[in-house]
Amino acid sequence: MRSDLPAFRIVAVDHALAPALQKKIDQKTKPLGALGRLEQLAMRLGLIQQSLTPQLHRPHVLVCAGDHGAAKAGVSAYPQDVTWQMVENFLAGGAAINVLARQAGMTLLVADAGLNHDFGPRERLLDAKVGPGTANYLEGAAMSSRECATAMQRGADVVRGLAGNGCNVLGLGEMGIGNTAAASLLTHCLTGMPLAACVGRGTGLDDAGLARKRDLLARALAHWSDRSDAPLQILARFGGFEIAMLTGAMLAAAEAGMIVLVDGFIVTSALLVAHRLHPAVLDYCVFAHRSDEAGHRGQLDFLKSEPLLDLGLRLGEGTGAALAYPLLRAACAFLDEMASFESAGVSNRA
Amino acid sequence: MRSDLPAFRIVAVDHALAPALQKKIDQKTKPLGALGRLEQLAMRLGLIQQSLTPQLHRPHVLVCAGDHGAAKAGVSAYPQDVTWQMVENFLAGGAAINVLARQAGMTLLVADAGLNHDFGPRERLLDAKVGPGTANYLEGAAMSSRECATAMQRGADVVRGLAGNGCNVLGLGEMGIGNTAAASLLTHCLTGMPLAACVGRGTGLDDAGLARKRDLLARALAHWSDRSDAPLQILARFGGFEIAMLTGAMLAAAEAGMIVLVDGFIVTSALLVAHRLHPAVLDYCVFAHRSDEAGHRGQLDFLKSEPLLDLGLRLGEGTGAALAYPLLRAACAFLDEMASFESAGVSNRA
Repeated sequence: MRSDLPAFRIVAVDHALAPALQKKIDQKTKPLGALGRLEQLAMRLGLIQQSLTPQLHRPHVLVCAGDHGAAKAGVSAYPQDVTWQMVENFLAGGAAINVLARQAGMTLLVADAGLNHDFGPRERLLDAKVGPGTANYLEGAAMSSRECATAMQRGADVVRGLAGNGCNVLGLGEMGIGNTAAASLLTHCLTGMPLAACVGRGTGLDDAGLARKRDLLARALAHWSDRSDAPLQILARFGGFEIAMLTGAMLAAAEAGMIVLVDGFIVTSALLVAHRLHPAVLDYCVFAHRSDEAGHRGQLDFLKSEPLLDLGLRLGEGTGAALAYPLLRAACAFLDEMASFESAGVSNRA
Repeated sequence: MRSDLPAFRIVAVDHALAPALQKKIDQKTKPLGALGRLEQLAMRLGLIQQSLTPQLHRPHVLVCAGDHGAAKAGVSAYPQDVTWQMVENFLAGGAAINVLARQAGMTLLVADAGLNHDFGPRERLLDAKVGPGTANYLEGAAMSSRECATAMQRGADVVRGLAGNGCNVLGLGEMGIGNTAAASLLTHCLTGMPLAACVGRGTGLDDAGLARKRDLLARALAHWSDRSDAPLQILARFGGFEIAMLTGAMLAAAEAGMIVLVDGFIVTSALLVAHRLHPAVLDYCVFAHRSDEAGHRGQLDFLKSEPLLDLGLRLGEGTGAALAYPLLRAACAFLDEMASFESAGVSNRA
């Protein structure tokens, strides 16, 4: 399987610049530490870009969409057709991520990673289709190792193209009816959290639906006699094409030194895979928000990461990433534009 | 004293539109409730404006600055001169609020509510000066009832001018060395929280400084044999000119039906006064963030309010309000621009 894996060269962020960044932050006309998380964010962005004046160029949100064979087994409150219908909504500009990306000044890209729908050639849809949805993981692997590698490669290709065009900050989002179920399985296998703690209501299951989802996912796990610890095998067994594409996208983004703005539960499940393959990918990640979907808090704890926002969002599509983006702009701006005590002639503390 | 009080006519927000707003929110192409706090914010903004398409016009941040007689007694880590020096920094464009208001697309207004400094006529500084700083509340009332009413009136006048020019959303901020101490006294007197729980490190006191601040504030309280429950008397005894100006500003803003974006600990202490005078002022408030200053959490709990951001900020100046403002824009945008299930041809849940 490793032979299929796209190669990534990800360099851990060099912290040698941290003291100079901290000094610059501390000389700004404000009490020490008074901008709280915004200061930590400025530090992170400065380290990623190895610059005392990090700047955001050509911000994009990449939404990867895919269908899940298991959706037909009833893991979601919505029918599978909603995946492609929502992609049409993205293309028409009417979904939440269209509105929020526009507000944030981010360019939205939508990719068909593997939808169970034939769109034909569409100007605004990236064709990265690996197949018409994954196989049903209740009956076998969701995808072959080759399909999994192909989806990762396509995510990487898109991001390398963006990087080549000067984009240095990438929000990641997804669409796929049934993909919280897949993300739950990945999270269970990759973090060791109990399955029940990894399974939530997704788009809004009631208690009976949640119980059914948990039962189905336990059966999916029981299908395999071995409990693989290999991240790509786990991804192929239970993941979605859009999740694999996101994994490749974030690895390529880190390789290119881009800032990766991580959205919610499903994007973080892709990161769990990426992180097992290349732990240094985490150096390039900013966590946009804490999703209301059960399991996201556990993922964040596992990654020892604190998100910027906590607004009870559970929509996906990259909406949390778009909402958090203005904070990244604010972090760069204060670092670049605020006066120092010396330059402003303000007395520092006694 | 009541005869000095500027008159405000504040009408509680009419909730009759709530079902229509909720229906509009629920028909958007997203699972029910999936935009979390953003949906509640859209509801609040719609109710304030009595509109299914609330819109934000000519957003401003009003920063009121004043000096405190008690600052010389050592309630702050910084010397009193920092107040006017920071106002110069505001006027020169180099402070955090300049940068963050610019990022947010908000116009910054800076008012001299009562600084211990003679600026002379300055084009970009609103002259609302009541006096050269308050008196030291360790020795008597910080201001006379007439001064207190004048400061409130000047805040109201500024806001009525903004409302007349079409501004419908106002962030509030402050600057004043020693004003977390004043806000602590107001908070203690108006909420009944123990004094110790209301007193924090302000701009960064160490443990000894904090103990000293607590001791000084206990002495300020002990100066008065009666424990007044009258909000304006409490404001006059312990407040600052900038806090009184903010109280008048937010009452006038609510009167005009504006959205009031409340910043941190000091602005919320002004709101505690306003709320006691006119409880309906709260209907017009959106709480930007939870400050790291001790006592802000207790204020928010007292007002049964949940802020949008929790970023460990403790800078003041209205910086939290400016950072939260993009969320207000996002709330209006999703309500106005997102497609409905019907218009987008997306299947709703079974």
